[in-house]
Amino acid sequence: MKDIQNQKDLRNISIQKVGVKDVEIPLKIERKPRQDQDKTLEETVYAKVKMSVSLPSHYRGTHMSRFIEILNEYKKESLLSSDIEHILFDMKNRLDAKDAYLRFDFKYFINKKAPVSSLSSSMCYDCAFEGEVDENCNYKFYLIAKVPITTLCPCSKEISKYGAHNQRALLTLKISYDNDAHIWLEDLIKMAETCASSEIYPLLKREDEKFVTECAYENPKFVEDVIRDVVLKLDENNIISFYEVEIQAFESIHNHNAWAYQKCYKR
Amino acid sequence: MKDIQNQKDLRNISIQKVGVKDVEIPLKIERKPRQDQDKTLEETVYAKVKMSVSLPSHYRGTHMSRFIEILNEYKKESLLSSDIEHILFDMKNRLDAKDAYLRFDFKYFINKKAPVSSLSSSMCYDCAFEGEVDENCNYKFYLIAKVPITTLCPCSKEISKYGAHNQRALLTLKISYDNDAHIWLEDLIKMAETCASSEIYPLLKREDEKFVTECAYENPKFVEDVIRDVVLKLDENNIISFYEVEIQAFESIHNHNAWAYQKCYKR
Amino acid sequence: MKDIQNQKDLRNISIQKVGVKDVEIPLKIERKPRQDQDKTLEETVYAKVKMSVSLPSHYRGTHMSRFIEILNEYKKESLLSSDIEHILFDMKNRLDAKDAYLRFDFKYFINKKAPVSSLSSSMCYDCAFEGEVDENCNYKFYLIAKVPITTLCPCSKEISKYGAHNQRALLTLKISYDNDAHIWLEDLIKMAETCASSEIYPLLKREDEKFVTECAYENPKFVEDVIRDVVLKLDENNIISFYEVEIQAFESIHNHNAWAYQKCYKR
Amino acid sequence: MKDIQNQKDLRNISIQKVGVKDVEIPLKIERKPRQDQDKTLEETVYAKVKMSVSLPSHYRGTHMSRFIEILNEYKKESLLSSDIEHILFDMKNRLDAKDAYLRFDFKYFINKKAPVSSLSSSMCYDCAFEGEVDENCNYKFYLIAKVPITTLCPCSKEISKYGAHNQRALLTLKISYDNDAHIWLEDLIKMAETCASSEIYPLLKREDEKFVTECAYENPKFVEDVIRDVVLKLDENNIISFYEVEIQAFESIHNHNAWAYQKCYKR
Repeated sequence: MKDIQNQKDLRNISIQKVGVKDVEIPLKIERKPRQDQDKTLEETVYAKVKMSVSLPSHYRGTHMSRFIEILNEYKKESLLSSDIEHILFDMKNRLDAKDAYLRFDFKYFINKKAPVSSLSSSMCYDCAFEGEVDENCNYKFYLIAKVPITTLCPCSKEISKYGAHNQRALLTLKISYDNDAHIWLEDLIKMAETCASSEIYPLLKREDEKFVTECAYENPKFVEDVIRDVVLKLDENNIISFYEVEIQAFESIHNHNAWAYQKCYKR
Repeated sequence: MKDIQNQKDLRNISIQKVGVKDVEIPLKIERKPRQDQDKTLEETVYAKVKMSVSLPSHYRGTHMSRFIEILNEYKKESLLSSDIEHILFDMKNRLDAKDAYLRFDFKYFINKKAPVSSLSSSMCYDCAFEGEVDENCNYKFYLIAKVPITTLCPCSKEISKYGAHNQRALLTLKISYDNDAHIWLEDLIKMAETCASSEIYPLLKREDEKFVTECAYENPKFVEDVIRDVVLKLDENNIISFYEVEIQAFESIHNHNAWAYQKCYKR
Repeated sequence: MKDIQNQKDLRNISIQKVGVKDVEIPLKIERKPRQDQDKTLEETVYAKVKMSVSLPSHYRGTHMSRFIEILNEYKKESLLSSDIEHILFDMKNRLDAKDAYLRFDFKYFINKKAPVSSLSSSMCYDCAFEGEVDENCNYKFYLIAKVPITTLCPCSKEISKYGAHNQRALLTLKISYDNDAHIWLEDLIKMAETCASSEIYPLLKREDEKFVTECAYENPKFVEDVIRDVVLKLDENNIISFYEVEIQAFESIHNHNAWAYQKCYKR
Repeated sequence: MKDIQNQKDLRNISIQKVGVKDVEIPLKIERKPRQDQDKTLEETVYAKVKMSVSLPSHYRGTHMSRFIEILNEYKKESLLSSDIEHILFDMKNRLDAKDAYLRFDFKYFINKKAPVSSLSSSMCYDCAFEGEVDENCNYKFYLIAKVPITTLCPCSKEISKYGAHNQRALLTLKISYDNDAHIWLEDLIKMAETCASSEIYPLLKREDEKFVTECAYENPKFVEDVIRDVVLKLDENNIISFYEVEIQAFESIHNHNAWAYQKCYKR
């Protein structure tokens, strides 16, 4: 059968990214060991994948099925997050490309204890791993977490006789760090939660609800306050080489959202 | 050209609904006149349309393009909401069907004054018109509005030293009423807003923010309270023959939502 | 602490459904054993949960945290799909309700072999389990699968010199069956796929792509044809007591979708 | 009342973007005049707005309500697209910011004639205007259009006895051009449509369906082909100073999408 993709293309245009997206696959990742555990645990998550390579000007098309084949091969030997680098180099080599890009989006569950009753329940976070390899074979990895929190408005608290409007907000962090270092999703998420007016929990009994209500009231924060507190922590962490932070608050008194954004290449 | 849709079908199955969805069209509707106006104003909204007819067992297919043609014809003479009945009868007749169904979903803007400063701004509501004609040529119309509101938790207020968690919630109302009566979207939405802990506004200056914060604190409501207050109002309105109400609160202390639902055929 | 939810309510309105939605939890379900396996395998999926009970008129509110507690208890003993009945009875009893409702939505992966190369890959389907217990303690279970398929237009094929427009379509099946019977997701999905112009696959090599292209061209089907073929199969299956089928085709020649719908209580 | 936002902030962090999003407003824009018209027509669209400014390190917060006030002021004198520049400068000045950013997303309807029957109907496109003013008061405007098209797979056509898989695809274009030039949405969209295997229409009679089916079969294109053809046209247009193009094809034979991406600063 003819290989149409391999036809010579005369338009003289190389394409920056060609690939597949919304591919859904089971993905094995490593979980941070608890303090009483001496090794990491593997866990299966379900990922939505976006993958691409660059395409030289002389080829008409890339071979889209190879993206799926590469994923399948890594799946046989249990797909690990730490293999992102190898998948990227395989993509680059087998698709004869200058560079390669990959992103896995998945839901990640972490057990959380309610602040007073200590009842434990599973909290779900939208997370992602992103990676790229450039033409000089430099590999870069990004860790992404979307962390739901509570924000309570300092202005509303200050000017009102009682009460203060508060709401769910979503704090999105994307970081990169040196290849010989490691940051766990669990630690990135915990750091984000400490910057909120209050953390969010799946299960709260009455004594917990009292605690989080009062905690939020005692820690009023604008989206500006939250993003600054996050930035302070990201700046002082020497392992982190890059960050991008966004917060969006689903204002309880409006039908629109407040948001703030910061991006920084530390080196 | 052969008319494949008109082929005889031998499977002996009549289909309940066949049609098109996610058709986007400009739609002319009537706006409630202000007190100082003596007639209604026409206004263009942008609607997403879902239309269907039943298909007798002996036809292989319906003629999908006729749905669009019917919409186009009504557009020429300016598409009015009051024409839903005529569009449905046209669908029923021209597609040779026992019954017909139609729904327009659109965004609707209403000017709202801030409670203290009286500053005016446009508030957007997701609304819909739905209609159906049955085999006995009975026409039924449904009015739908999704109304964002604030709810403040009575339990959180009661047990906490200060503050109370509150959040944006979405109250969805669907009503039907006698064909010789009329209810404006403006009035349905206003009724819904009076059942909230506090209304929501696009523009609030500081004196308004103080007002809505205190108002919510003084009117703590569970989703159960809101739905009961709405149901009371719908029950006592004699024009309304059917209602369906749903409320979903985007809890500020959880990453999941509280919800409540009620449906009632009054006659 | 005061139990505000237990306050007496004087509005005299019982609520049909009160509960939580968009709760995300890991859920252990059973997978259909392969022919060479003598027992079922357990597998963890990630579910979005909707749960509710009815609320008697004399209570002000339900206890929302109990929904999460009930889920947590079943999780400890590994949450099985077959426990839906027990979860529902627990909800009914512990929340002192007349009836209870529960739905788990989750992504489910099934290995699929390409039709010619026989290369295997994971195909993802959006599925759901739904259950309800009524005031007479009758339990009803529903199985839901959303199956992506290809449809190729019979009219376009007939009237055109060559080619025929085709597209991805989504076939949604919801069935109920007698409590002493069992239908696997794997079998419901397979049945749905046989009614398409062609099945859809995650991984296709060139010989496979030729096969599915020709297969679709040889099996042109309107949405009306697909739904009738599905209905025929559901009608002749005596275990099935109820079904609801919807197909939506993302027309390649339009920016709107064709759809068809059928619902039937067989007994 | 105390102005909490104006409090001095000691964290020494200036924020790159602070603002509001998902604000919904009616927006008056200009439509390209038809050949027989000598002046442009104004038309109201419904826009979702994202607006932000940078925040100096010494302020605790920005004044979110001023964003809505600025929008309201421009609305009084009828909100025109050409006012984006003035809105941005107002934002910059009144919020005492170094730079400002603004985006309006809206649905835009264009009449389209079916290729053979010449029947006219409204086609809807998701479009956006984006603008920014930097610290040196340079204004930049971006025009965005999402154009649904048909792609037909060259490989599938080549290797199959008959037929070829085809599907709806979405081509997203974002361009910038010199401030003294002008490009209409109508022209950007038309250009995009000429790069497809076939255009898409809301209303097609049988003779039109034959035409578009055969047209797509005669113009097989990978996503790579479409993006190269678009890039060629954008490169040769001297007015355009920047472009970003993405295409996503909803493959009819897979449950995932093919995509390609290109971005270029021409000057």
